[in-house]
Amino acid sequence: MRLASLKEGGPDGSLIVVDRTLSRAVSAATLAPNLRAALDDWDNVEPDLRALAVELESGSVAQGISLSYAKLTAPLPRAAQFLDASSYLNHIELARRARGDSLPPTLETDPLMYQGASEPLGGPRDPILAADESWGIDFEAESAVITGPLAMCASPEEAAKSIRLIMLINDVSARRLVPAELEKGFGFIHSKPPTACSAVAVTPDDLGEAWDGARLSGRIKSTLNGELIGDPDCGVEMHFSYPELIVHAAKTRPLGAGTILGSGTVSNRERARGSSCLLERRMIEKVDRLDRRTELMRFGDIIEINMSDAEGQSIFGAIKQRMERI
Amino acid sequence: MRLASLKEGGPDGSLIVVDRTLSRAVSAATLAPNLRAALDDWDNVEPDLRALAVELESGSVAQGISLSYAKLTAPLPRAAQFLDASSYLNHIELARRARGDSLPPTLETDPLMYQGASEPLGGPRDPILAADESWGIDFEAESAVITGPLAMCASPEEAAKSIRLIMLINDVSARRLVPAELEKGFGFIHSKPPTACSAVAVTPDDLGEAWDGARLSGRIKSTLNGELIGDPDCGVEMHFSYPELIVHAAKTRPLGAGTILGSGTVSNRERARGSSCLLERRMIEKVDRLDRRTELMRFGDIIEINMSDAEGQSIFGAIKQRMERI
Repeated sequence: MRLASLKEGGPDGSLIVVDRTLSRAVSAATLAPNLRAALDDWDNVEPDLRALAVELESGSVAQGISLSYAKLTAPLPRAAQFLDASSYLNHIELARRARGDSLPPTLETDPLMYQGASEPLGGPRDPILAADESWGIDFEAESAVITGPLAMCASPEEAAKSIRLIMLINDVSARRLVPAELEKGFGFIHSKPPTACSAVAVTPDDLGEAWDGARLSGRIKSTLNGELIGDPDCGVEMHFSYPELIVHAAKTRPLGAGTILGSGTVSNRERARGSSCLLERRMIEKVDRLDRRTELMRFGDIIEINMSDAEGQSIFGAIKQRMERI
Repeated sequence: MRLASLKEGGPDGSLIVVDRTLSRAVSAATLAPNLRAALDDWDNVEPDLRALAVELESGSVAQGISLSYAKLTAPLPRAAQFLDASSYLNHIELARRARGDSLPPTLETDPLMYQGASEPLGGPRDPILAADESWGIDFEAESAVITGPLAMCASPEEAAKSIRLIMLINDVSARRLVPAELEKGFGFIHSKPPTACSAVAVTPDDLGEAWDGARLSGRIKSTLNGELIGDPDCGVEMHFSYPELIVHAAKTRPLGAGTILGSGTVSNRERARGSSCLLERRMIEKVDRLDRRTELMRFGDIIEINMSDAEGQSIFGAIKQRMERI
């Protein structure tokens, strides 16, 4: 089942069920006004949403609409929490090598994770807004899961069961605002403008072999102004699984329904796979060629992030954002 | 006008209007199901809420209820964002001196602020839960504001106008989990268990001279197991005003209705005013007496945080939390 949210109907959007070709949709308003409300009452609402999805696929829905990406907000525009990890060790290792740092001793045992803004989360065609190019805007292509409610100190099994939906995200970063915030040691605020989400969020069962209960598999392709930046597989080299990340997040607090956990920038050791952000490409240029030729994003640049199935059909609905001056 | 939320009616709670003695209340369900919904439609809902408050004070409300703090959740249990600053420089200076660090050059120009968990936020009688005393649980007494929606890059004037409500919070911290997270540089997750809030949130006009449009004034009294830990005035030595903190928060992102900005641990240079957290008391013991005798919280300890008016009437309704094993 694929769920999305129209921008209409208030800041939580209006829940719609989308077909497998991501071209037709139907309002789920009679079942739940928005995804937040559906997640709050998932056990009751989910079966009816699934029945509506079956009806939509069968072509028997009378009130179907054509899906327009421009009218979509994030599937869950106001989430309970947005916690973003850094699960691909290759990405961390490159960052450390590029600045001459050693690797932290807890690299493989203690996930890096920051608390991001859970609101507002943007839709797949929302612009990336910046007041100045000097902020150093970059994209970060990631997968993410949306959870149900989870008790504090939850087990890995409970964490795995709490996963309701999977999507892609663009964890937009303002690279040149990072050093001052790292220096202060309190995490990221200025350097993390709003995150954008794929058109739809998909239930685990609908992903087939691309979802093994712990990780999403498949190539996430990032294209900047039509140029391929990278297409690493998000299922290999994701060191910490989603259940492990969720357990980490819930150690000292419960998680509310609609908590989003991001994987961190997808990265494969195989250089031919490229990168899922411009910073990593710059790090590779420095490490491999002692030369940083890649620039960060400029006004007018368009970043596209997508994952397709074996038939070339987009699974989550591409994120395609233009960087614009506010 | 004083607003609170009953735990009933789902995770956003049920909005009630509370009288000035914090003893009587009336359901606002016919106006807005919860404070989140009221803040989403504030211009329409606020006048009706105020009319209900006037009716309650006049004694003409038929369906009034006695206020039971145990039945209250946070006024806004699921906020848009929770951003917590560190506006009292005395607190920062003591922390740095105690560990032999110098002061950062941007201390007075660039606020320290972290992104906290905006959900769940606890009620005034909710326990502080920990799996182990070794986490080093501490309280932090602060004031906080709840904002309406605000555009990215907002001006100080727009920021000041966005302030809807003021309350007290206990920014619970797990001190012994802080060093590992500071080392990682990604901010605080494990070291920040859920924050708790005072019984009511109060509109600026209802605070009289205690609110000057930029800062709350008055002594916030913290008592641990009946022993006074401190009663510093939150209106003096708050270096960054609320509008300044809000402008900082909104530099690269808009703020949704129901964003909470915390002041940081209240601290006065006058030693007789004591401290608003145990860590600071330990720092003063180290700096003044080379001896840290104050322990962090143990299971069974009860922390009370309160602010009273000239007549001794609690303004926000005391936070009173017992530390318990989960």
